[in-house]
Amino acid sequence: MFDKKRVDDVFGGIMADYKEKDRFINTVEICEQPNSDEVRTILLKLLELVFPGFYKDRFYHFNTLESRLNVLLEDVLYNLSKQIECAIMQSEEYKGSPCNSLEEKAQEICLEFLASFPKIRSYIETDVIATFDGDPAAFNYMEIILAYPGILAISSYRIAHELYNLNVPMIPRIMTEFAHSKTGIDINPGAKIDKYFFIDHGTGIVIGETTVIGKNVKIYQGVTLGALSTRGGQRLAGVKRHPTIEDNVTIYSGASILGGDTVIGHDAVIGGNSFITSSVEPYSRVSVKNVEHDIKSGIEKEISSGELNG
Amino acid sequence: MFDKKRVDDVFGGIMADYKEKDRFINTVEICEQPNSDEVRTILLKLLELVFPGFYKDRFYHFNTLESRLNVLLEDVLYNLSKQIECAIMQSEEYKGSPCNSLEEKAQEICLEFLASFPKIRSYIETDVIATFDGDPAAFNYMEIILAYPGILAISSYRIAHELYNLNVPMIPRIMTEFAHSKTGIDINPGAKIDKYFFIDHGTGIVIGETTVIGKNVKIYQGVTLGALSTRGGQRLAGVKRHPTIEDNVTIYSGASILGGDTVIGHDAVIGGNSFITSSVEPYSRVSVKNVEHDIKSGIEKEISSGELNG
Amino acid sequence: MFDKKRVDDVFGGIMADYKEKDRFINTVEICEQPNSDEVRTILLKLLELVFPGFYKDRFYHFNTLESRLNVLLEDVLYNLSKQIECAIMQSEEYKGSPCNSLEEKAQEICLEFLASFPKIRSYIETDVIATFDGDPAAFNYMEIILAYPGILAISSYRIAHELYNLNVPMIPRIMTEFAHSKTGIDINPGAKIDKYFFIDHGTGIVIGETTVIGKNVKIYQGVTLGALSTRGGQRLAGVKRHPTIEDNVTIYSGASILGGDTVIGHDAVIGGNSFITSSVEPYSRVSVKNVEHDIKSGIEKEISSGELNG
Amino acid sequence: MFDKKRVDDVFGGIMADYKEKDRFINTVEICEQPNSDEVRTILLKLLELVFPGFYKDRFYHFNTLESRLNVLLEDVLYNLSKQIECAIMQSEEYKGSPCNSLEEKAQEICLEFLASFPKIRSYIETDVIATFDGDPAAFNYMEIILAYPGILAISSYRIAHELYNLNVPMIPRIMTEFAHSKTGIDINPGAKIDKYFFIDHGTGIVIGETTVIGKNVKIYQGVTLGALSTRGGQRLAGVKRHPTIEDNVTIYSGASILGGDTVIGHDAVIGGNSFITSSVEPYSRVSVKNVEHDIKSGIEKEISSGELNG
Amino acid sequence: MFDKKRVDDVFGGIMADYKEKDRFINTVEICEQPNSDEVRTILLKLLELVFPGFYKDRFYHFNTLESRLNVLLEDVLYNLSKQIECAIMQSEEYKGSPCNSLEEKAQEICLEFLASFPKIRSYIETDVIATFDGDPAAFNYMEIILAYPGILAISSYRIAHELYNLNVPMIPRIMTEFAHSKTGIDINPGAKIDKYFFIDHGTGIVIGETTVIGKNVKIYQGVTLGALSTRGGQRLAGVKRHPTIEDNVTIYSGASILGGDTVIGHDAVIGGNSFITSSVEPYSRVSVKNVEHDIKSGIEKEISSGELNG
Amino acid sequence: MFDKKRVDDVFGGIMADYKEKDRFINTVEICEQPNSDEVRTILLKLLELVFPGFYKDRFYHFNTLESRLNVLLEDVLYNLSKQIECAIMQSEEYKGSPCNSLEEKAQEICLEFLASFPKIRSYIETDVIATFDGDPAAFNYMEIILAYPGILAISSYRIAHELYNLNVPMIPRIMTEFAHSKTGIDINPGAKIDKYFFIDHGTGIVIGETTVIGKNVKIYQGVTLGALSTRGGQRLAGVKRHPTIEDNVTIYSGASILGGDTVIGHDAVIGGNSFITSSVEPYSRVSVKNVEHDIKSGIEKEISSGELNG
Repeated sequence: MFDKKRVDDVFGGIMADYKEKDRFINTVEICEQPNSDEVRTILLKLLELVFPGFYKDRFYHFNTLESRLNVLLEDVLYNLSKQIECAIMQSEEYKGSPCNSLEEKAQEICLEFLASFPKIRSYIETDVIATFDGDPAAFNYMEIILAYPGILAISSYRIAHELYNLNVPMIPRIMTEFAHSKTGIDINPGAKIDKYFFIDHGTGIVIGETTVIGKNVKIYQGVTLGALSTRGGQRLAGVKRHPTIEDNVTIYSGASILGGDTVIGHDAVIGGNSFITSSVEPYSRVSVKNVEHDIKSGIEKEISSGELNG
Repeated sequence: MFDKKRVDDVFGGIMADYKEKDRFINTVEICEQPNSDEVRTILLKLLELVFPGFYKDRFYHFNTLESRLNVLLEDVLYNLSKQIECAIMQSEEYKGSPCNSLEEKAQEICLEFLASFPKIRSYIETDVIATFDGDPAAFNYMEIILAYPGILAISSYRIAHELYNLNVPMIPRIMTEFAHSKTGIDINPGAKIDKYFFIDHGTGIVIGETTVIGKNVKIYQGVTLGALSTRGGQRLAGVKRHPTIEDNVTIYSGASILGGDTVIGHDAVIGGNSFITSSVEPYSRVSVKNVEHDIKSGIEKEISSGELNG
Repeated sequence: MFDKKRVDDVFGGIMADYKEKDRFINTVEICEQPNSDEVRTILLKLLELVFPGFYKDRFYHFNTLESRLNVLLEDVLYNLSKQIECAIMQSEEYKGSPCNSLEEKAQEICLEFLASFPKIRSYIETDVIATFDGDPAAFNYMEIILAYPGILAISSYRIAHELYNLNVPMIPRIMTEFAHSKTGIDINPGAKIDKYFFIDHGTGIVIGETTVIGKNVKIYQGVTLGALSTRGGQRLAGVKRHPTIEDNVTIYSGASILGGDTVIGHDAVIGGNSFITSSVEPYSRVSVKNVEHDIKSGIEKEISSGELNG
Repeated sequence: MFDKKRVDDVFGGIMADYKEKDRFINTVEICEQPNSDEVRTILLKLLELVFPGFYKDRFYHFNTLESRLNVLLEDVLYNLSKQIECAIMQSEEYKGSPCNSLEEKAQEICLEFLASFPKIRSYIETDVIATFDGDPAAFNYMEIILAYPGILAISSYRIAHELYNLNVPMIPRIMTEFAHSKTGIDINPGAKIDKYFFIDHGTGIVIGETTVIGKNVKIYQGVTLGALSTRGGQRLAGVKRHPTIEDNVTIYSGASILGGDTVIGHDAVIGGNSFITSSVEPYSRVSVKNVEHDIKSGIEKEISSGELNG
Repeated sequence: MFDKKRVDDVFGGIMADYKEKDRFINTVEICEQPNSDEVRTILLKLLELVFPGFYKDRFYHFNTLESRLNVLLEDVLYNLSKQIECAIMQSEEYKGSPCNSLEEKAQEICLEFLASFPKIRSYIETDVIATFDGDPAAFNYMEIILAYPGILAISSYRIAHELYNLNVPMIPRIMTEFAHSKTGIDINPGAKIDKYFFIDHGTGIVIGETTVIGKNVKIYQGVTLGALSTRGGQRLAGVKRHPTIEDNVTIYSGASILGGDTVIGHDAVIGGNSFITSSVEPYSRVSVKNVEHDIKSGIEKEISSGELNG
Repeated sequence: MFDKKRVDDVFGGIMADYKEKDRFINTVEICEQPNSDEVRTILLKLLELVFPGFYKDRFYHFNTLESRLNVLLEDVLYNLSKQIECAIMQSEEYKGSPCNSLEEKAQEICLEFLASFPKIRSYIETDVIATFDGDPAAFNYMEIILAYPGILAISSYRIAHELYNLNVPMIPRIMTEFAHSKTGIDINPGAKIDKYFFIDHGTGIVIGETTVIGKNVKIYQGVTLGALSTRGGQRLAGVKRHPTIEDNVTIYSGASILGGDTVIGHDAVIGGNSFITSSVEPYSRVSVKNVEHDIKSGIEKEISSGELNG
């Protein structure tokens, strides 16, 4: 049906394109890399381990809950070690190491990660409590655990953050990007976030790699805790580029707070859609100015967003 | 390969963590709850019932469309009743009721819900028309029904809202969270939204539980119709915390409108990125002020966003 | 168990609703249309063809990479032609054409599309480079290609854009809506975007159909490049309704830039959460004003977002 | 890892083999043919239509059984017509016909087939009764319908036989080979089998294309109703090559009855492992002779299989 | 495309057929019954429990083998109890019992079944040994466990037999029919088979419900241990209708041994294709007579199958 | 619901059973072994490579057939090598070899196997021809290739046989057992079978490991080419235990021919259900004697099966 000559020309052109040697996009001899699907599967198992009573098959577990958790743990230990091995292989630190030592290192990292699992759970527990306290629409803890995107995003972050602390490349990011894709909430695994963190709705939230967040902070959808533009940014790798948010701060929807030296003082309230690139005092209220234009009288007046509670 | 002693220590620590009795995160004796996957499946069937001619297998249906709809309806009746039964079991009202009466109640609720289905369809119909009228890029109704995230979100909301009105817990929220995850549009099933509602693009939209929206309203991506911060919020359950938007209002991208007493008067236009916590008159235009800084001259001037059409 | 009489009444009411003849929502004699699932599958294959060395099964490809690409190409040629045929059948231009000529036309379009594939790849290559240069958190090109939502969205757009240029209806939109659903980034296939385009985080970005974007532009999450409200918008189909962004512009999170005559001059920087409906000079900096309210002293002062780098 | 030169040699050899032009095994321009998987799916739907009350989802069908059957019927009508069209395209009779007339013909055949469906069901009903009456181990009709391989094989045959009678090539055989693979019972769709047919156990049964079987016949596992060897057999196509079995005959396990002129008279009983190539009178008993050798005394005696009941 | 009138006629005819009330094939109000797919899944889990070291995931089980087995056991306990409940509901004994007592009874039966599991395993162990000893082509125990159809059939039988002994209807038969379909070996769950049972190849073997088999018996493919014909057989339910095979007997391929009073004495050897309906002494050899016809000389002579070893 | 004490007892008993150390059935430290599912997948790919024009996706292959075959070949090369490596690890010959040398050896074996692939195809081609010539019911070559169980069994055997010749353990057997399960035809991969081999129907056929079969042989269902009983058979490993069948022999259904010294001379015909343990002259006809008993007259007479054609 197709004109064979025409098809050959078109395909030939594409094939020639693949053969241009000096382009990274034509790289084919890539070394082994973590498998994204596998990492996502492991993350889901870890989330099940965080909330073991809330998942399926719980109706006949009087006997086997412990057995099931053991099976799940060892499954994670085995598979996550393998993924970590693939990931650290990529890092400068380990390039050229013999296989054995990589495998051992990966297992050691994985065990250290699991050793921190009770700590991870205790943090997430506070996030659930903060969510319930902060949302009058919440029915009970169960609804929050099963249906709130904020909890999915924070839990994934807390897991990924421990791996980030252990210098595992790529895997933490794959985990938080999975949560990002499901929830629209993008928390870089490098961020430091203290207990009782509450994200409401969440779509559009971005929390950058060097952000520091205190206890009892509350963030609404569309909030950015970001860097000032970082063109040629590879020079900035490792530098603190994102803000510090102290305890008890509330940040309303759509606010952007940028810069590594920007500190939002404790108990401050940042109004929606503010764009902040310098520090804010404790207990202050920041808001944007709107202008209301009366279409009939033609009069224009500034309106403030008034006293914001935190 | 792993050091068994080390593994036992790590696993032992995790197991001990699960055994701390006084933490809700270790709850294992949870009563039955709605199954999220099943609820999502039911929602997809309901969406197919909303637009029966637009789904697959339509090429040989001269005879069986009615049969297929009957099969689908009874499937929904049967499965949704079961999920409703699990859900109402959780509510204070029904705790301790005998099984029979719960089952009967669930069936009654489900039938009432289905009885409202023609009304649901008639509302969604107006939303499709409003979308087509409002978007010059739309090719035809079919494209809107099959590809527009706004229609997916609104249709899911309209279905969930009827269940919310019948006091079904959790299920409406699972439905709208499904649409939220797919589209980034988070409409609480409690909101009241009149006909001809048009959401463009939609990612990042949040519409809170006690919001009231009139006819012919148009909302762009990133808009929040929210509450002022509700720390310790469980005390506020049931109170009107979200704004009222009257007929023919247009709200541009990124605007946040907060508070239960805030009313946006009919035919008003809210400019992008405004942050509004008090009422706005009918027919008015609200916008933020920008400052333009000429990097060469060093001169700074305010720029308004001019006359916005609705 | 159910009361049959009641069920019959409810179902009868719904069935009657389907029979009201004059409502498009009851249309059942729709002509053939593109299959969304199939279109998504084709898009995934095209993405694999863009980055052939980065996908699975690459461990035994010394021999077969070329063979595999040929197989994939012909698969795409065959299946995409069929979808194009279904799509153009809908357009006024081809209505009533005999089947043969539609099939031939679809094949011709598909081959023209594939002929542009090397160009598509060369553009995407620059986007990956811009992303790596712009993000200090990026580990290497591989991480960007496999995990960054911005690259998924831009690549999908660049593919869809070529089909849009060939006047294929619906398919380009289904492709970009797929990326929208995964990433929260909504780029209309009609937009014109030059090389080295960098999207950071991306959730909530909207880029409208008639937008024009220059080289080396950088856009953060939540940015809208949109139209002023377009009620009764079908009259505006084809008109330039979205802004022009010149080379080297940076647009911070949450900014909205609207209108077909709005031009952001080269090397300008648009601060977060600005709402812009008129043109901006080259090299300028635009930002919103915030008001800081000291809750203890009661003093209120304007704060600017200072000097923004691009 | 592999030696590329060696691999190229080996692959080259295989590729060369594919290019030898005069071998049917290298045919690549085959015209369209029925899809085996699709045919098997249709067969399973037809079996569900034979026993509609015995399949799943029957718990909520007070309303929809009829609807469900209608949907299933139209599904079969649509899909089987398409497969028939592919099949008759192969036959000499239709080669070169225009597409339209093939499609119409296929639909006509399919409708004729469905018109015979009540007759098929009435025959299968008698087979279930005969099975229950003949097997003391049967628990009830339900167990027979759901678990007995004989019923699966006979039902598949009865369906395939009607298509065979309508001169549909290949499809009937694909259906009976499916049952053959599941049950080890190979009934050629061309065989003529009257009511009340009982197959016990069944593995290894072969019933050839021109076999004729009367009412109330009972056959055990391993029985062959076959042809004498048919080397150069294509000359024999259409000739009666397989035996005739009259009413009320019982054939024990492992018996082979061969030849187109061989008639087993009514009420005869054929003992296990007989090998019969000529006719047998009504009411007779046929059995093989065994020799018993007493290993201690060395004495050898013939033993008959005694009086066999039918 | 189809002629609607014709379709309606055909479908109408089929629908009318379903409405004839007095035919069991039109039964729709069937009570709950065991789910065949679920029973097969349980059988596969039980087989995994028989040979726990030979299945997948064994590479990381130093810790979790016991946990995994516990999980599997409880899964079986839970699901098999539910299937048993559905099955005993059908039996006369329990018809009309209240739900609670059925559930309790089913659980009791299931626990009794599991209590016999070590005995089941010890028997199957001897069957594997007998198979290895008897087959020079066997590579090792692992190959036998993983690849030999005889072991699959015997293991399934030994599991089903214990359920049969506990008077569970239908489920044992569904289990052995599953093995029958996979292997062509049909062992009725009622048969009594002692240790060290070896089935070679196996296709076509039938072992009836009241068969009794001693220790160390060896059976080849195509062997029937059956009943004499049992027309009107429901009168014979419960009667011993199948033979008794004593210790150390060998039965060659294709032999049929029928009748409840037929006893094959210990250490006897039954030659291939014999058809035996009366008892055979211990240590004897039974074989059929063949006739060799020299096609050139026209001479015909009887040939015996000589001395058979067991 | 269950009595926990009772469950613990039962489970405890089973767990104790697993801990008895000296039983092979409790082995858990098994070394790596071939993966049966993977081997079956490879076999299916090899069958596709035998008949490349007869499989799906052939409608758009004018360009890619060669590409597709290359991809398939390299897939097989890669995956089969890995399975061979697991298999030879088990054999005495390689136990304790270093990993590298095993991998190299496995690759070498795999390439040798593929080098014989054109020979395998040329043999299978003759089998298809013999089948078409021998079966008047065959419609064309395509039907035979797609639907005849005999061709599936022979092709699988011919592939497995080449691996057997290369001393690969376990894999050949897994391949032929797969075909056995699908077709009821059990051909040991060790058998030697010349060209133009025709199996009709096939269920119940067994062909033992040391069988030798000449050209142009035809075998019906239920035929055994086996060994005399081989209790304590591991001593006989490697000895010729199965018969030799010379050219042009026909063997009717149900015949058993046993013993390593048994030779069926060329052009002989073996009647159905014969049981043969000694050699047969060329051109002879062998058949069993039946006895016909006239139930009315009481007269009994021997009946021969007459002149059998081959």
